[in-house]
Amino acid sequence: MKIFYKKEIEEALDIQTVLNRIEEGFIIYSKKEAVIPPVASLYFDAPPGDCHIKYGYSKKGKYYIIKIASGFPDNPKMGLPVGNGLMLLFDKATGRPVALLLDERYLTDLRTAAAGSIAAKYLAPKNIKSIGIVGTGIQATFQLQLLQYATPCRKVIVWGRNREKAELFSKKPELSEFDIEVVDDLEQLTSQCNLIVTTTNSSKALLLSDKIQPGTHITAVGTDDESKQELDPYIFGKADRIIVDSHSQCSLFGDTSYALKAGIITEDQIYELGEVILDPSLRRTSENQITIADLTGVAIQDLQIAVAAYEALLENGF
Amino acid sequence: MKIFYKKEIEEALDIQTVLNRIEEGFIIYSKKEAVIPPVASLYFDAPPGDCHIKYGYSKKGKYYIIKIASGFPDNPKMGLPVGNGLMLLFDKATGRPVALLLDERYLTDLRTAAAGSIAAKYLAPKNIKSIGIVGTGIQATFQLQLLQYATPCRKVIVWGRNREKAELFSKKPELSEFDIEVVDDLEQLTSQCNLIVTTTNSSKALLLSDKIQPGTHITAVGTDDESKQELDPYIFGKADRIIVDSHSQCSLFGDTSYALKAGIITEDQIYELGEVILDPSLRRTSENQITIADLTGVAIQDLQIAVAAYEALLENGF
Repeated sequence: MKIFYKKEIEEALDIQTVLNRIEEGFIIYSKKEAVIPPVASLYFDAPPGDCHIKYGYSKKGKYYIIKIASGFPDNPKMGLPVGNGLMLLFDKATGRPVALLLDERYLTDLRTAAAGSIAAKYLAPKNIKSIGIVGTGIQATFQLQLLQYATPCRKVIVWGRNREKAELFSKKPELSEFDIEVVDDLEQLTSQCNLIVTTTNSSKALLLSDKIQPGTHITAVGTDDESKQELDPYIFGKADRIIVDSHSQCSLFGDTSYALKAGIITEDQIYELGEVILDPSLRRTSENQITIADLTGVAIQDLQIAVAAYEALLENGF
Repeated sequence: MKIFYKKEIEEALDIQTVLNRIEEGFIIYSKKEAVIPPVASLYFDAPPGDCHIKYGYSKKGKYYIIKIASGFPDNPKMGLPVGNGLMLLFDKATGRPVALLLDERYLTDLRTAAAGSIAAKYLAPKNIKSIGIVGTGIQATFQLQLLQYATPCRKVIVWGRNREKAELFSKKPELSEFDIEVVDDLEQLTSQCNLIVTTTNSSKALLLSDKIQPGTHITAVGTDDESKQELDPYIFGKADRIIVDSHSQCSLFGDTSYALKAGIITEDQIYELGEVILDPSLRRTSENQITIADLTGVAIQDLQIAVAAYEALLENGF
């Protein structure tokens, strides 16, 4: 088995390749050409934390993936990042371990942001006035970086529960291409932005239905298990398009699940991102529509990015 | 993260330590001091294969385990062993990967055999006439090697679906301490052996109820998912003691599940190995009783053996 470290992976992997492979992954998934069982999870109390194991394979591919990603919110008190993780590729014909990618969660963060960028590409209005970023963590940074591939807009409004962290976010060198304004009130963001990305680990709805303007696209990526929620379920009632990464998974958790359980929407209103990529009629048909992309993270993304990374590493002589 | 290979692990790890730690693990598990979610599985068609992910932690421990073990029955055609696997230990307080044990399934095979040896120690009759081994694969070898710690009996009768493989098994140098006879008919085994271990990946019952003699202990370790079966469910109806490694898991699959679903036994007849270790009244009370240990494999075993291996490797300077 070959072992690769975060620095090598970052160096070898090209962002446009990632976007292409993740897009291809959503198509494979929605065409039912992948085997992706439900997520396996561990939860911890003291200190609090969680660990999600995502695993599966593409029927036509050579590998199966097992991806492990953890989040321990108290880590920064010890000078450690919240997230950690690794990816393992195995030979689908023999079970032999092929590659260990010690990416420290870089690939999970990157593939999540790639999904956000792809969702914006296919669902956001043509003319983005301002990008609204809800949350100031590592995923907020990744989302903004990858949105550069989906829109020329560089005007950003950011809101976080902690003003100080939002200020630090707005000054990140890797986001220097953006003109970032920090606001204290979420309404200042929802009133000005028509592309909004939520990236928090909130346990209650942050974006409220009556504040969402016509012509807004919302991508929600924070709600990755049953304990979390970012969107008021009534936003789903106002939405013209409800797109998810995985229909089965977003019926179990994700913001869509709250709207379904409350009876605000029905299963037949939901389409998958892979279907939207394949079928233009499932995208917005006017600049005034409200669209939602609820992205909970699917192992097909992990498989696609891990294979892309592995191939790039070999090509680059690592 | 420290990375260790099979050869180092085999060298560092002492069998008696493994037996002690696995016994301790069953106690932790049955005292509900561990968090062990249901097994995650992947199945493959062409070529056929499976991969099981077992994961969890002890509430009082420092680590969580994620164990990956695969079986691809066609591997020997390519000169590869059927099984493969690895274990990962993570820091339970931060999610940081601590150790990767590239054991190639050695630790899974060893902890499975340790459970068989512990079951025999607490459940088998005092005087073993002959040990019966059903199956001739790698796990059959491990079971016999570890039974040396549970009984002085060295007389063995082996049966396999393939006579040639059974002959090869009987001549294995690592089993040279045993006097091994190969039989063509399972009845020759069941009529002479009062400690029987089944280690096949059979999909239908091999041991039949009317052939089991009074005073027999049976340990079944092959039925590790829904597709497999080794014991005629009516054996459970004749048994005086039905012991499982995990009550919840053996209600889902394992040989016990067939007897439960057929209504031959009820949930209240089942006890866990951890309970038997703690409470002598749950063991056999006469040499004539029939006892069964249904062992499907639990992540607490993986955790215990991985921690034991990691500590031994550090102590031995690896």
